[in-house]
Amino acid sequence: MDGVEALLTELRAALGRDAVLTDADVTAAYRHDMMPLAPHGQPLAVVLPTSTGQVQAVVRACAAHRAPIVPRGAGSGLSGAANAVDGCVVLVTTRMNAIVEVDADNRLAVVEPGVVNLDLRAAVEKHGLFYPPDPSSYDWCTIGGNLATNAGGLCCVKYGVTTDSVLGLEVVLADGSLLRTGRRTVKGVAGYDLTKLFVGSEGTLGVITRATLALRPLPQAPATLVATFDSTVEAGAAVARVVREGVVPSLMEIMDRTSIEAVERYLRTDLDAGAALLICQSDSGGEAARRELAVVEQACADAGAGLTYVTEDLAEGRELLTARRSVLMALEVYGAWLTDDVCVPRTRIAELITACERIAAELGLRIAVVGHAGDGNMHPTIVYDPGSADELARARRAFEEILAVGLALGGTVTGEHGVGKVKQEWLATEIGPVGLRVHRGIKRALDPGNLFNPGSMFSC
Amino acid sequence: MDGVEALLTELRAALGRDAVLTDADVTAAYRHDMMPLAPHGQPLAVVLPTSTGQVQAVVRACAAHRAPIVPRGAGSGLSGAANAVDGCVVLVTTRMNAIVEVDADNRLAVVEPGVVNLDLRAAVEKHGLFYPPDPSSYDWCTIGGNLATNAGGLCCVKYGVTTDSVLGLEVVLADGSLLRTGRRTVKGVAGYDLTKLFVGSEGTLGVITRATLALRPLPQAPATLVATFDSTVEAGAAVARVVREGVVPSLMEIMDRTSIEAVERYLRTDLDAGAALLICQSDSGGEAARRELAVVEQACADAGAGLTYVTEDLAEGRELLTARRSVLMALEVYGAWLTDDVCVPRTRIAELITACERIAAELGLRIAVVGHAGDGNMHPTIVYDPGSADELARARRAFEEILAVGLALGGTVTGEHGVGKVKQEWLATEIGPVGLRVHRGIKRALDPGNLFNPGSMFSC
Repeated sequence: MDGVEALLTELRAALGRDAVLTDADVTAAYRHDMMPLAPHGQPLAVVLPTSTGQVQAVVRACAAHRAPIVPRGAGSGLSGAANAVDGCVVLVTTRMNAIVEVDADNRLAVVEPGVVNLDLRAAVEKHGLFYPPDPSSYDWCTIGGNLATNAGGLCCVKYGVTTDSVLGLEVVLADGSLLRTGRRTVKGVAGYDLTKLFVGSEGTLGVITRATLALRPLPQAPATLVATFDSTVEAGAAVARVVREGVVPSLMEIMDRTSIEAVERYLRTDLDAGAALLICQSDSGGEAARRELAVVEQACADAGAGLTYVTEDLAEGRELLTARRSVLMALEVYGAWLTDDVCVPRTRIAELITACERIAAELGLRIAVVGHAGDGNMHPTIVYDPGSADELARARRAFEEILAVGLALGGTVTGEHGVGKVKQEWLATEIGPVGLRVHRGIKRALDPGNLFNPGSMFSC
Repeated sequence: MDGVEALLTELRAALGRDAVLTDADVTAAYRHDMMPLAPHGQPLAVVLPTSTGQVQAVVRACAAHRAPIVPRGAGSGLSGAANAVDGCVVLVTTRMNAIVEVDADNRLAVVEPGVVNLDLRAAVEKHGLFYPPDPSSYDWCTIGGNLATNAGGLCCVKYGVTTDSVLGLEVVLADGSLLRTGRRTVKGVAGYDLTKLFVGSEGTLGVITRATLALRPLPQAPATLVATFDSTVEAGAAVARVVREGVVPSLMEIMDRTSIEAVERYLRTDLDAGAALLICQSDSGGEAARRELAVVEQACADAGAGLTYVTEDLAEGRELLTARRSVLMALEVYGAWLTDDVCVPRTRIAELITACERIAAELGLRIAVVGHAGDGNMHPTIVYDPGSADELARARRAFEEILAVGLALGGTVTGEHGVGKVKQEWLATEIGPVGLRVHRGIKRALDPGNLFNPGSMFSC
């Protein structure tokens, strides 16, 4: 173990003793993210650098000692991408949490990767600006993790995913050199789009140490609509009609019967929602918002909605969204949960929900489907008893069957959570042998020693 | 020349004799694009495949005979990226011009690369849908060329560039295999974002044979504002104020004094515009459009506008845009033109225009600056006498000096036209040695024989 000791000595010299954790009790907190199905190993150390220079020192030391590096933000991920592998160094970016610059006149911010999403949102809001990406964990996830996974959220239907808000990056490469990608301008086509190659690469190509992010004007206060349906087919038809009518809401979420029942029990309320609930917002303001939601309301009615309700009252709108935001907590009453993530064409949402009902019945599980209906990104959430090996096995089977259904419906095996250490085989199925070959070629070109997050996303 | 004859025989066998052009008089039309400064060589053949299978056959034959391939659409490019190199095969995609599918319910289209931008716009408009990217050559450029260069246009300030409208691609790689990237869903994070890596790669990594494009709802009919200024500083301040006020117009163009004078002479009209003209549109419709343009009008007035005028009349709005659209034709009265392409932070537009005035004075040239003020992408256009070697040399010097100014202002050396065969050294300057190394690594990983567009963008 001389090599390990030598590496630890180098890491301590570069970062200070406080920033190099080796006690297994302490490093345990950094071994895995929020995905229970993904494997995780035992790191030889967890390091918490505070600067790009320190990240470079860690990368160079690990490269010299052939110790794999697993980059990690807050650990809110849902694919195991940040899970430790045996003998690795987990590189945690949470201490690099400076908002370096907010340039309101050019609508951009420069941040370190450890900045918490909510902190950035709050900081730019003071300038009347808006950073759209809003994963559910926005109050504790980091921008670095959002970049690594190309995170989405409720905003995506109108504002896109993380990659749509990134202008440029600073990345430490496998040889310790520092790559600057992109620019500070709105447009630019100088060379390959390396920025968007690194976004979503799940820590397999380098360590992002700084990002230049595009901001938007703060939208108007949202108006909110809810609609209830007696069948998922009707709710799915309503979504398709909204898309067809050319409305782009700022939020359009769907909850199936199982989610509705769980939330009704949890919040001790009667949503009177039947088989499906749609929640929709417009942040276009005033007459434009009224016009948009009127189109949505008509589309819901035409599709057979039982009840529709529109409000411009902010507090009431927030309350209506509470049902959607409470689903995961509501499910915890029944057991542990496991969230899947498939994205299907928006015309196929009802078919996905129906298939999840079938899978739940066949495997004797509770599966609640919630999702971003506006972009087809569905999160069937499987409830299971973590103490029962049999139930965990059935949950895992449901997880896989849902992915197969998503692909069969013309969708993708991950809309926003990523591949990580739980969907490698599904990635291979989705992209095929040529796609996999190209992935491996790019990985080899950038990380020939397979230093970064080995075995995650795909095997080399 | 046995090898050449063997290659030509293989190409003719695969594509038919009509699709393999070798007569120098005929191939001359395919030797270069619209950028006069870029070098161009003599191709050994120009091929016009009609299917993906034929493209694969061309790639395999050329790879076997080590003949470089230069992919090309309509040749409307402004960087020489599609220019022939000596002994190459120019692969023209214009015969692959099928709109394979318009899926209105999922707001997407599947097209072959030779589809003309305008034809796609017209086809999807019938479904109430909108394909935003609108380069100036939209009535004759092809989607394949737009993808290869990540083309922009007037729409970008609100709707982004080409890459923002691409969901997936089919690409023939250097070994003739067919790569499928991306998906048909709105979101998806399965693997590296290969789609956005190929978009803007200027034909150096493969041949795009099919694209799945995201469409938007047709926007409302635009309302239009024009504002005149006595100085470029005031006009620049107006742009900065509009950005700061949080308005996102659907179009915001700027013309400097030289452009205005040329257009006044060409259209025999008095624009009464002084030193700078801003033209701005909102396609938000009704009250929302009025609200947006009222903010723009106030911002212009506060910045010192001489005159502002707003109209909701479509025909009148189109007429006001005519001034902007006539600049290049108006400049042809004075000589040939050469359009540069830099993108600067939106707060630095006035400085760029002022620098162009200085460069024009120093070099004794007419330089008209027009540009997409809303995103900072400026097109200083240099007028020169193509019969004068001295004037062409000065034009080239102006072209380079403008790039240096763009970089010094925190900008990029190309906002939307690309690097091609005219800005390789500037790319190297902008991205630095680490960036260049990563570019070369990716190129080698995907095209180890340097088959595609060798010497374009960067040298291997």
